[in-house]
Amino acid sequence: MPELHDFAAIRTALADLPGPDTAAGRDAAARNGQLTKPPGALGRLEELAQWYAGWRGDPRPEIAAPQVLVFAGNHGVAAQGVSAFPAEVTIQMVANFRAGGAAINQLARLAGARMDVHELELDRPTADFTRGPAMTEAEACLAFATGWTAVAPDADLVVAGEMGIANTTSAAAIATAILGGENWAGRGTGVDDVGLARKEAAIAAGLAANPGRTGLEVLAALGGREIAAMAGAVAGARAHRIPVILDGFIGSAAALTLWAESPATLDHCLAGHLSAEGAHDRMLAAMGKTPLLSLGLRLGEGSGAALAIQVLKGALACHSGMATFAEAGVSDG
Amino acid sequence: MPELHDFAAIRTALADLPGPDTAAGRDAAARNGQLTKPPGALGRLEELAQWYAGWRGDPRPEIAAPQVLVFAGNHGVAAQGVSAFPAEVTIQMVANFRAGGAAINQLARLAGARMDVHELELDRPTADFTRGPAMTEAEACLAFATGWTAVAPDADLVVAGEMGIANTTSAAAIATAILGGENWAGRGTGVDDVGLARKEAAIAAGLAANPGRTGLEVLAALGGREIAAMAGAVAGARAHRIPVILDGFIGSAAALTLWAESPATLDHCLAGHLSAEGAHDRMLAAMGKTPLLSLGLRLGEGSGAALAIQVLKGALACHSGMATFAEAGVSDG
Repeated sequence: MPELHDFAAIRTALADLPGPDTAAGRDAAARNGQLTKPPGALGRLEELAQWYAGWRGDPRPEIAAPQVLVFAGNHGVAAQGVSAFPAEVTIQMVANFRAGGAAINQLARLAGARMDVHELELDRPTADFTRGPAMTEAEACLAFATGWTAVAPDADLVVAGEMGIANTTSAAAIATAILGGENWAGRGTGVDDVGLARKEAAIAAGLAANPGRTGLEVLAALGGREIAAMAGAVAGARAHRIPVILDGFIGSAAALTLWAESPATLDHCLAGHLSAEGAHDRMLAAMGKTPLLSLGLRLGEGSGAALAIQVLKGALACHSGMATFAEAGVSDG
Repeated sequence: MPELHDFAAIRTALADLPGPDTAAGRDAAARNGQLTKPPGALGRLEELAQWYAGWRGDPRPEIAAPQVLVFAGNHGVAAQGVSAFPAEVTIQMVANFRAGGAAINQLARLAGARMDVHELELDRPTADFTRGPAMTEAEACLAFATGWTAVAPDADLVVAGEMGIANTTSAAAIATAILGGENWAGRGTGVDDVGLARKEAAIAAGLAANPGRTGLEVLAALGGREIAAMAGAVAGARAHRIPVILDGFIGSAAALTLWAESPATLDHCLAGHLSAEGAHDRMLAAMGKTPLLSLGLRLGEGSGAALAIQVLKGALACHSGMATFAEAGVSDG
């Protein structure tokens, strides 16, 4: 594992991340052309399989060991009344994750994924970013490193999810800082108009209190520990050439901080789904990602990404399991 | 099993099909409101789970025994040069289905589904519908009954797929006859502009040779045995209150013939995916169905619907497996 003790070290680590195995990708493309189907008839599944093959360095891979990571953190900005739920729900939901009762538990099990839950100092919320940075550089780096090391080196696919009351406010503030413009706040877990106005005010105050930042500095100033950990997991997976499926609004905001460092940092990432959190579509479009699913989810936890594992599994099942025209004795047109 | 020997008998059978269990649906809705997530946060998964619960008469069901049916038939209209592949590919692909080498084999296995392949008189193609009806009423009813009886009574979800060279031409002709308008033909397995023009000419000739038909008469005049069998399977599943996931352009055209008899006949059906076959979106819109997936597939075989089983499984895994707020000790806002 590389040094990740400050932003300069993380930037060095990001610059050293590997790319895909282009030879394996070429071999996978050749195989795809021989499978018993009309050319292109499996649509996006064909692209997904070849993309995955390149990252895994295997022209005929399977997904046998997906890992779902769930990071939990508490946010000082929750004091601004930006969520429909009280802050203690974060730790209550962590207990629910550990007991197997949350949505992500069911979806991880369905995907045959191991699931690891990481609490990040829940008794020590980040600072309220309306008054200054949410985290020091050291705090952000520690959380980032927690995410990086949480990736199992023998996983073959990673989903990073989160739990953290008030973290759609944090994610919207990150998007505002990195992408500019307005109206990044949505209703999160379901705030009313008054709550939404409080979110928008908190984001504006956060931007005013933390001006002129980019990439990792935005992550520290406006993020949370679970968001920094998700960013670390995305990068840490890449170090092992493990593809990542991004989750919804908050997971995408975490990835956006890496994208702001360098867009190619997300080349090993798919967008799992389009969240119902209003501005998610603009965030994905900015990163050039097309979601695999669009089912109106807005739960977080990694739920949409975990469901999307099935799509990628389907792509690989076809690619690696189908017969070729020659093997099956089928005329190829 | 009801009598299905002529259209009048089938119409009687369709009129006798059961509806959902509204009490189970209500109980499922009550359960949904108690699960450890913000209201509505699982988006369409919540609706799907409640809908499925109603059809199964169980407020907390699982999908344990899905069945994928693949019907194969040959089409006289293939003689018009409407496909990029020769007609003998139908029987070659049936052999591939039986050997486990096709895309649908991989996707059925991934979904934990049993798969049953039914060949429908492959050595006796339907008549060329550009010159008159493709099938007699008796032939269409026999194929419909084959589909109806192919449904396993103990299945808890059914996907009906197909194989039949030239059957996108047949499906487009069905859509033209039932929904009117133009431009229902697409490129199917990949015809060029000349082939597409031949498809459009064949459809126009088919409509001229078979005027003034509706519902089941359209199925006989312009369909194929595998399309009639798919329609029969959709109805036969309903007889056992088994929900159905429709596949792409051809599967939807089969369902459209039932919709033309009575739209409510498809209340137990979901649209599995939006096919890349151009006019599929209009066909689904006419039937009021929103696809679960949109991944550019255009293979048929039941492939898109089989992949969509995973979405429904995810919905039920959450609905039936999650803890309630009370069970988990989580504050509900």
